[in-house]
Amino acid sequence: MTDYTPQPSDKFSFGLWTVGWEGVDVFGPASRPALDPVESTYKLAELGAAAVTFHDDDLLPEEATREKTLARFTQALDETGIKVEMVTTNLFSHPVFKEGGLTANDRQVRRYAVAKVLRNIDLAASLGAETFVLWGGREGAEHGASKNVPAALDRMKESLDLFCQYVVDQGYTMRFALEPKPNEPRGDILLPTIGHAIALISELEHPHLVGVNPEVGHEEMAGLNFAQGIAQALWHDKLFHVDLNGQHGPRFDQDLRFGAGNLRGAFWTVDTLLGAGSDKAYDGYLHFDYKPPRAEAVDGVWESARACMRNYLILRDKVQAFRADPEVAQALEAAQVGDIVEPTLTAGESLEDLRSASYDVVALGERSVAMEALDQLAMEHLLGVR
Amino acid sequence: MTDYTPQPSDKFSFGLWTVGWEGVDVFGPASRPALDPVESTYKLAELGAAAVTFHDDDLLPEEATREKTLARFTQALDETGIKVEMVTTNLFSHPVFKEGGLTANDRQVRRYAVAKVLRNIDLAASLGAETFVLWGGREGAEHGASKNVPAALDRMKESLDLFCQYVVDQGYTMRFALEPKPNEPRGDILLPTIGHAIALISELEHPHLVGVNPEVGHEEMAGLNFAQGIAQALWHDKLFHVDLNGQHGPRFDQDLRFGAGNLRGAFWTVDTLLGAGSDKAYDGYLHFDYKPPRAEAVDGVWESARACMRNYLILRDKVQAFRADPEVAQALEAAQVGDIVEPTLTAGESLEDLRSASYDVVALGERSVAMEALDQLAMEHLLGVR
Amino acid sequence: MTDYTPQPSDKFSFGLWTVGWEGVDVFGPASRPALDPVESTYKLAELGAAAVTFHDDDLLPEEATREKTLARFTQALDETGIKVEMVTTNLFSHPVFKEGGLTANDRQVRRYAVAKVLRNIDLAASLGAETFVLWGGREGAEHGASKNVPAALDRMKESLDLFCQYVVDQGYTMRFALEPKPNEPRGDILLPTIGHAIALISELEHPHLVGVNPEVGHEEMAGLNFAQGIAQALWHDKLFHVDLNGQHGPRFDQDLRFGAGNLRGAFWTVDTLLGAGSDKAYDGYLHFDYKPPRAEAVDGVWESARACMRNYLILRDKVQAFRADPEVAQALEAAQVGDIVEPTLTAGESLEDLRSASYDVVALGERSVAMEALDQLAMEHLLGVR
Amino acid sequence: MTDYTPQPSDKFSFGLWTVGWEGVDVFGPASRPALDPVESTYKLAELGAAAVTFHDDDLLPEEATREKTLARFTQALDETGIKVEMVTTNLFSHPVFKEGGLTANDRQVRRYAVAKVLRNIDLAASLGAETFVLWGGREGAEHGASKNVPAALDRMKESLDLFCQYVVDQGYTMRFALEPKPNEPRGDILLPTIGHAIALISELEHPHLVGVNPEVGHEEMAGLNFAQGIAQALWHDKLFHVDLNGQHGPRFDQDLRFGAGNLRGAFWTVDTLLGAGSDKAYDGYLHFDYKPPRAEAVDGVWESARACMRNYLILRDKVQAFRADPEVAQALEAAQVGDIVEPTLTAGESLEDLRSASYDVVALGERSVAMEALDQLAMEHLLGVR
Repeated sequence: MTDYTPQPSDKFSFGLWTVGWEGVDVFGPASRPALDPVESTYKLAELGAAAVTFHDDDLLPEEATREKTLARFTQALDETGIKVEMVTTNLFSHPVFKEGGLTANDRQVRRYAVAKVLRNIDLAASLGAETFVLWGGREGAEHGASKNVPAALDRMKESLDLFCQYVVDQGYTMRFALEPKPNEPRGDILLPTIGHAIALISELEHPHLVGVNPEVGHEEMAGLNFAQGIAQALWHDKLFHVDLNGQHGPRFDQDLRFGAGNLRGAFWTVDTLLGAGSDKAYDGYLHFDYKPPRAEAVDGVWESARACMRNYLILRDKVQAFRADPEVAQALEAAQVGDIVEPTLTAGESLEDLRSASYDVVALGERSVAMEALDQLAMEHLLGVR
Repeated sequence: MTDYTPQPSDKFSFGLWTVGWEGVDVFGPASRPALDPVESTYKLAELGAAAVTFHDDDLLPEEATREKTLARFTQALDETGIKVEMVTTNLFSHPVFKEGGLTANDRQVRRYAVAKVLRNIDLAASLGAETFVLWGGREGAEHGASKNVPAALDRMKESLDLFCQYVVDQGYTMRFALEPKPNEPRGDILLPTIGHAIALISELEHPHLVGVNPEVGHEEMAGLNFAQGIAQALWHDKLFHVDLNGQHGPRFDQDLRFGAGNLRGAFWTVDTLLGAGSDKAYDGYLHFDYKPPRAEAVDGVWESARACMRNYLILRDKVQAFRADPEVAQALEAAQVGDIVEPTLTAGESLEDLRSASYDVVALGERSVAMEALDQLAMEHLLGVR
Repeated sequence: MTDYTPQPSDKFSFGLWTVGWEGVDVFGPASRPALDPVESTYKLAELGAAAVTFHDDDLLPEEATREKTLARFTQALDETGIKVEMVTTNLFSHPVFKEGGLTANDRQVRRYAVAKVLRNIDLAASLGAETFVLWGGREGAEHGASKNVPAALDRMKESLDLFCQYVVDQGYTMRFALEPKPNEPRGDILLPTIGHAIALISELEHPHLVGVNPEVGHEEMAGLNFAQGIAQALWHDKLFHVDLNGQHGPRFDQDLRFGAGNLRGAFWTVDTLLGAGSDKAYDGYLHFDYKPPRAEAVDGVWESARACMRNYLILRDKVQAFRADPEVAQALEAAQVGDIVEPTLTAGESLEDLRSASYDVVALGERSVAMEALDQLAMEHLLGVR
Repeated sequence: MTDYTPQPSDKFSFGLWTVGWEGVDVFGPASRPALDPVESTYKLAELGAAAVTFHDDDLLPEEATREKTLARFTQALDETGIKVEMVTTNLFSHPVFKEGGLTANDRQVRRYAVAKVLRNIDLAASLGAETFVLWGGREGAEHGASKNVPAALDRMKESLDLFCQYVVDQGYTMRFALEPKPNEPRGDILLPTIGHAIALISELEHPHLVGVNPEVGHEEMAGLNFAQGIAQALWHDKLFHVDLNGQHGPRFDQDLRFGAGNLRGAFWTVDTLLGAGSDKAYDGYLHFDYKPPRAEAVDGVWESARACMRNYLILRDKVQAFRADPEVAQALEAAQVGDIVEPTLTAGESLEDLRSASYDVVALGERSVAMEALDQLAMEHLLGVR
């Protein structure tokens, strides 16, 4: 059997809040003790992760212990060689953000939110983070009248323009990544999908500094195909970061470990990240943003973290085998999958040439597309029976 | 009681395929006779519509009768004063498009699709249509390997760039509008939401010529808030057209008459189209793209068409009353809804000023947001009890 | 304008946990202070509620204060005349129940759960509650292997049989009501819908003592039609209690105030509860199980509670006007709605008579069903324009 | 590699309408030629199926050819040894059923529907079918007023009571199976889930003659867990038949081949059918009710049919290996999965004993449930890496 032990070169990364989730939900309090984030950093390094990420409040909840914790944390980074590849700001837990952060109706809240992000950008830069994620979980509304959406998008753009200018002015090299989500905790969240976020980016002052950080479960909560979504993000050169986890379609945000939920979707996600079926690949960190189920004790926390990485490695193996299989190559040809890279209009040809050509629509309507056969090959690679 | 009789100045428009749907679905054949589209044009004019729209195949299914039908149709336009405000091309019914049209793997199919669109652009221009809609219902896949998504987006871009250049070259004044849909009839459709479509447009050669044509039900099939979605489209100046109908959330495409399904959503949709709560309004045609339920006979067809317009007028009335109500003005102020138009950073202020300010996060966390009260006022206007 | 002030005769009831929800969710801590449940009882009485309900832990979280709080609570009941119509047991918050209560794999947990319910049944009886609700929010699983579902149903049946025998033995008059929910907080919950719960009841030792307590949002999270669901429950004589709130289809459990979310569904819910379109009506308490949005401060808590009752009264008015409208009577006749009460086989007729009859299927296929017209009348009553 | 060639002993069965679907949908006409159902019977036998099933209209659409087709069909049965294990009646395609069949408002339609079923029961008996399925795809409504739901359930009960009495009177041995579906083609369908159907059965005159025929996709369209649903049906001894296919959650009815869609769900479905984790197993035919995607030509039809069976065999193999794995046995023990078969109350013990016992709720709240570890073992068996 292949060895699926993660290596730093695999670039696996974990949010400290993932293993650190204590199990608080709408229906009950914590079911697990708080974990020390520095201890978790050592543990994740030991399990094979290459990097950790955090919200300011995960690592440094209090001013009083900030410096001391930072010192311990940087020592952990040094000792383990683990990186901080991404940092993000919590604009959703404190009641001050109950009606939004960067797009709250209340201007003082917006100002406080901007200040909180800026402080954290400085910290991120000092720790060498490449990416700064913004998830606006409370940016939205339950009802139609309470939010002027175009003005809220103005405020979102204003904030992003300020942040970009700030990193340019400071000479920081990090880039920003917006994380879309359709709903929960707000009834409807602004920038609900990958598409909406990329659309917004096209209106910014520094669009090249901003991309997206899509999460498997967030797109699947809207019934969208995650692999197709990140493929579009790659097409725009906007896949700056990715959040891997699992979900069972439209329902509450499950944050299952990667692979659980929609397993076939996970296979195509890995295929897309590897660029195995196109000329666009992702080369960033593979970031797990999941929650060990509340029922689990601490043993289940580490078990699920281990499994996230292991499932990725297993799927990577299978994707590579699928793409290397000569029978798959034949099936792709039978399905004419490669033909789509050819332009529809030949270079030098006029539209009139195309229009005056004759098309045998009956024969084309009857042609074999051979996609079930191709998909069954993928299925059998996934199931390990080829 | 107010008179809710539609007038041409209301700019209501109907797809000829809507009233013309014979009731064919996956589980049964036609339940209604074919309607003559020219007769439907007279009937829609009589009901108060200002315009009709069509796919090439709705009006002109056969070459043999094309000229004769066109003559009858233009006579109907002349006699009734009804306009052709939009034209669209059917790239989804004929089996030739079973695996896609503009993004089919088969290049001949793509070429035929482009030719079919071009011919219809000429027709649209000759009839004075302002908008040319493209709905790619078969552009997508059931399975991951059968479509190279980045290459398919290249082909989509290629096609749109060709179409835009063509209308520029011909001196036509029409604009294009992409219609997003997440799934059905394909397992997953490319450009699944408003956001994905606007993102794509930002990469085109003539982005100013291309906008979106969102449909209520299509966004709601993904659980997305339609009013919020078109508000973002307005913010991008990309709401070129709109398809009004009704839907009950994630399930098959119901195409209910406008108002049926998510009625509260319809209220906020009208509010957003009118720009009642922001400085962005839509001034195009109000296009109904719905299907009279298969169970209905022809009487139900016209009843439902009448009701689409009537419901819009009723809701418009209610939105205007809501926005004119002094108690609503107070509630908006209590909810600080207007404050979001103020920039977060004051002109001339530095980020340092903002960062060094002090924020009473406890008091801000405890503030009243008063949104339930505001929403209840909207509810009572909708219910007609204020 | 009609006065929509609730009266005790309207039989409105509130869970003390509804107004008492402090706003804790997966993404943030409390945003509102704890309310004293006894004070809330006075306040709800003042607003016009006829009754309150509670989980043991809502009212009596600690042994030390139990007797004192009970004394204060019964004094409030006496002073206000408000009733305790229903009591329920919290088998989902404490970590002991993290993997289930009555169907936990761990037998000690199941025994503790049974004991906790029994103690609360005694309390419910002493307070005169008519109904004892059981919601099994943690009875379920995230994954397939971790729960033997048939055995779990055996345990559910065992528990219910024990509870029924206990109330029989004690001479209590209360009945039990199972509350279905498809998911959240567990990945999949046992007895996910009204149907599954009624099916289980048919296997119990005392089926007449057990019914259902459906919640609007819980059924709508599965995309099911709530009015149709409770109509089936009424048909089985199993609608022992009802939880009214609002939801936007398949997504997280929103617990919006009644009327918000699917407003048309709320109209048909009230119509069904009143038995307005059938010979089956509900005559129990109208229980609101909702959550004031986390963004709201305490003012919004009471505003939303008030609005739940007000919306019910408004809708009741509209349903009654709809059913009294002579044009509606005509439309119902045109749609042949009343004909369904006639048996398909005439009394005394043989199947052979029915089989040998001739049927004009073409004419029947072409008949008008006139349902859009009927539905539009309902729409216009709802909108207050008739 | 294991051989996954289906054998008649595997009891695979196909609806003739599945491979026979010509690709007609709401958005386009047939994309494939009509297949001769008798030829399809030979072909399915050749592929390894043990049985076929049909709606009356699939096999015998016209009176004129009925006897001749039946003769050819019975010859095919004889020559191939293939069985007719189930028969069902089409009460949804012809426009006569546009507003329902057994529960249509129009009494003549209901009578015609009953007659059509009775005739087909005779045919089913003559062909030796064990099961008679009833799917009420048009039994439902788009809107609230058009259907008196309790009366419709009376009519459903009336029809079922008539059918049961008929088979008793005729001495037929077949049993009935109701097939639930939440929506599509009607807006909301009566008996939307497994639970609702079993609940109805409990009210019938001959409940032992009626069970359910759940379909993977139909339950998943409501976001329900199929394996859990059929486990409840098994618990009621009501799983009389099963429809296997694939679906991607709440959206249109996809009818993908078995395994496609929710693959992990398919694994637990096979586990449940085999009774591998409980003492309840299914021993009937494994019936595929799917649709080859419209894009496929005839080669894809047979490819997908072959893959349905192959995927079942692969999954059966994996389930058996999972359940035989000693490490899984340990993990099940660690997760206390087996403990749930023990009654909560010990035989002879009183409730008072249980109530007076002491429970260490803190320790129980902190216990390991070890379910992620268990689920990961299942995952690795599924992926073939153990």
